[in-house]
Amino acid sequence: MKDFELWIPTKVIFGKKALKQIPKELSSFGKKALWVYGRSSIKITGLYKKIKEILIQENIEFIELGGVKSNPFLSKVLEGIEIAKKQKVDFILAVGGGSVIDTAKAIACGYYYEGNVWDFFEKKAYPEKALPIIVVLTIAGTGSELNEVSVITHDIKKVKHSLRSPLLFPKVSFLDPTLTFTVSPEHTAYGAVDAFSHVFEFFVNREYKKDSLVEDLMIVIMKNIIKWSKIALKEPDNYEARANLMWASSLALCGLIKAGIGSYRFPIHAIEHTLSGGYDIPHGLGLAILMRAWMKIHRKDEIIRKFFTKVFDLPIPEKGIEFFENWLRELRIPMSLKEIGIPKEDIDTLVDKAFEIFLLYGAEKEYPKEKIREILETAFF
Amino acid sequence: MKDFELWIPTKVIFGKKALKQIPKELSSFGKKALWVYGRSSIKITGLYKKIKEILIQENIEFIELGGVKSNPFLSKVLEGIEIAKKQKVDFILAVGGGSVIDTAKAIACGYYYEGNVWDFFEKKAYPEKALPIIVVLTIAGTGSELNEVSVITHDIKKVKHSLRSPLLFPKVSFLDPTLTFTVSPEHTAYGAVDAFSHVFEFFVNREYKKDSLVEDLMIVIMKNIIKWSKIALKEPDNYEARANLMWASSLALCGLIKAGIGSYRFPIHAIEHTLSGGYDIPHGLGLAILMRAWMKIHRKDEIIRKFFTKVFDLPIPEKGIEFFENWLRELRIPMSLKEIGIPKEDIDTLVDKAFEIFLLYGAEKEYPKEKIREILETAFF
Repeated sequence: MKDFELWIPTKVIFGKKALKQIPKELSSFGKKALWVYGRSSIKITGLYKKIKEILIQENIEFIELGGVKSNPFLSKVLEGIEIAKKQKVDFILAVGGGSVIDTAKAIACGYYYEGNVWDFFEKKAYPEKALPIIVVLTIAGTGSELNEVSVITHDIKKVKHSLRSPLLFPKVSFLDPTLTFTVSPEHTAYGAVDAFSHVFEFFVNREYKKDSLVEDLMIVIMKNIIKWSKIALKEPDNYEARANLMWASSLALCGLIKAGIGSYRFPIHAIEHTLSGGYDIPHGLGLAILMRAWMKIHRKDEIIRKFFTKVFDLPIPEKGIEFFENWLRELRIPMSLKEIGIPKEDIDTLVDKAFEIFLLYGAEKEYPKEKIREILETAFF
Repeated sequence: MKDFELWIPTKVIFGKKALKQIPKELSSFGKKALWVYGRSSIKITGLYKKIKEILIQENIEFIELGGVKSNPFLSKVLEGIEIAKKQKVDFILAVGGGSVIDTAKAIACGYYYEGNVWDFFEKKAYPEKALPIIVVLTIAGTGSELNEVSVITHDIKKVKHSLRSPLLFPKVSFLDPTLTFTVSPEHTAYGAVDAFSHVFEFFVNREYKKDSLVEDLMIVIMKNIIKWSKIALKEPDNYEARANLMWASSLALCGLIKAGIGSYRFPIHAIEHTLSGGYDIPHGLGLAILMRAWMKIHRKDEIIRKFFTKVFDLPIPEKGIEFFENWLRELRIPMSLKEIGIPKEDIDTLVDKAFEIFLLYGAEKEYPKEKIREILETAFF
C-alpha cells in the first residue's frame, strides 16, 4: 500500500426520507441561496415544487439558475457567478446530477475570485475560498456529490477541464434513490458506466497493483454497479437497484477507492473529454466506447487479466471483453465511435486535443500521440 | 437498503511518512496540548522521543498524561479533565491505541462539562462541546481513530460503558503502519479480532440482511482482516500486512460498514464489556470467545450460514466454526472462558451485569437473561 491522505467532510443523508432533513440541515448555511438546476426534468417530476416549498417555508430567499446542460458550459458558470455576486448569496443549492453539481462548485469558488474562474481549470490560479454547496442528487453516476472535483467545458475552445480543491466538497449531500426512478434508461446506463469507469481507471492505471483491501473494495463496487444497473434498467422503480447503484456511484469517486493505490492516471477520461467536450455526446457513452477499446488493446496485460478474473470472474481475455460487451448491450449502449457517427477524419484533431489535456497533467510522456491514436482508432470499430 | 446518515469528518494521514505531516496539521489547533499516552511502549520504541521533538520544535507547550491502561478507567479521564482545565489546553494529542484515544475523547468532552463526565456514559447528559482531538495510532484494532465513540470503565462499579457523539471524531488521525511492527503477537491478534468483531456484529445483528453493496464491503473487510492478521503474526515487519490490517480496522467501525443496514445491535460487545470490565482481560480475547459461542448457537441461522458461505467460503456450518477456530488457533487465542480461568460460579453476576447494559440500550426484550446465560454457558467450553 502507498501512503495516502483521505478526508471526505461531506455529510451524506441517504434514503427515501432524506429530503425531510433538508430544513434542519439548511438552517446553518444562511438565508439566501443560489439555486442551480438543470433543464425541465425537476419540473416534470415535481421535485422543483417540493424544493421551492421547503425554501419558502424555511424563509430562505433564493435566486434560480436553471438550464444547466450536461457537459456544462463555462458560460453558465460565469452567469451564476455574476448573479451570486450581485445578490450576495450565502450558499449554493445544487439540485441535479453531475453537471449541475459541477456548475455549482465552479460558481462557489468563482464567487470569491476576481479573475476569470477558467483560470482555476487551466491551473493558472487556485481557489482560496468557496461558498458552501448543498446537493440534492437526482441521477447516479459522476460521484460529484461526494468529492472535490468540478468538470467544465469551455464554450468556445470546446475543451473540458477539471478542477480539484478541498473547498469544493459539498457540505451536505441529500441522496434519495427514489428521485432516480424517473431517470431514462439511457441516462441510467450512462450514469452506471460513468461510475464504473472511475473504478476501472483506478484499477488499471494505478501505481500500486498488488492484492490489497483497497483493490477488493474496488472489485465489489464494480461488481455491484454491473449487477444493479441491469436490474435498474429492467425495473426503473426497483428501490434496491437504484439505492445500491447510487451509493456505489458515490463511493466510486470519493477517495476511498484510491486510498493506498499511489499515483494514478485517468487516461480514458482525458481522451473522453475531447469527445463529450467536442461533440456533446453523453460522457458515459464516450467512456463505454473507450473502455472497450482499452480492454481490447491491453487484454493481455497482467492488470487487465486480473480485472477480468476478479471483476468478471472470467480469466480468459476474449471472454472478458465479451462480458463487457454483453453488459453494454444489456444497457443498450453503442460500442464504437463509428456507430455514433463520429467522422473518422476527425481523429487527428481529437488526438491533438487529448494530447493537450495530457500535457496539462504532465502525462505527455506516458501518453504520446501514437498511444492516443491507437486508442481512438481501436474505438472506431 | 435502509436510510442512513454518514459523516466522517476525520482527516486520515496514512503511511510510512505520515508523521512528517504532524507539524503542518497541528499548527491550526493551538499552542498548548494535553498529550495522552499509555504505558511504557512508546518510550521503548522511540516514538515518545520523536513526538516530543516535534512538539518542542513547533513551540507547542504540552502537559503529559501517561499511564493509560487497556480497558481504560474513568479515574484517568477525571485526572485528565482536571489537568486540562487547570492548564487551559487547546487540544488533546492521543498517541496510542483505542484505550488512549477513548480516554482522550472522554477528556475532550468532559473539559466543557460541569458535572461528572460519567453522566455522558450513563446517558444522563450529552456533550455539547469538545476539545479538538489529534491521534497518532500505534495499534490496529478498535477503530477509535476514525469514529465518534469512547468506551470507558468505571473503576468502582467495574462496568464498561460507551459514549457516542459527533464531537468526538478526531480532527486528524495519523496512521503509520510501521508503528505497529513492534506490537506483540498477542496484541496484534486481539486487535485483529476486535476489528473483525465489529464487522461481524454489523453483519449478523442488522435489520437489513439482503445482498447489497454494504454487505459486500463487510465481507471483503472481514476477509482482509483474516488474511493479513495471519501474515502479520508470522512476519511482524511485513508492511503490507500491517498496512492492510490497520486500514481494515479503521474502516471496520467508521460508519461506512453500517451505512444502509438499518438498526443493529452489538450484543457480543455488550456481554464482552462485562468480561473485560470485570476481569481486565483483553477486549479482543473476550470477543473471540464470545463470537465462537455465538457461531455455535446460531450456526443454522440463515445469516450465519450466509456469513460462513461468503466470508469463510464454507457453506457447511460445522466447517465454518472449524475455520473460525483455526483462525483463532493461528492467532494463538484461547477459545473458552474456562481456558482463561473465569470461575463458572461467576455466571450469575455476569448475566446480571450484561443485562444492565442491554437495559441501558433498551434491548432487554431481545436479550433476556436466559439468552445471555446461554451465550456465556456456551462460551465456557
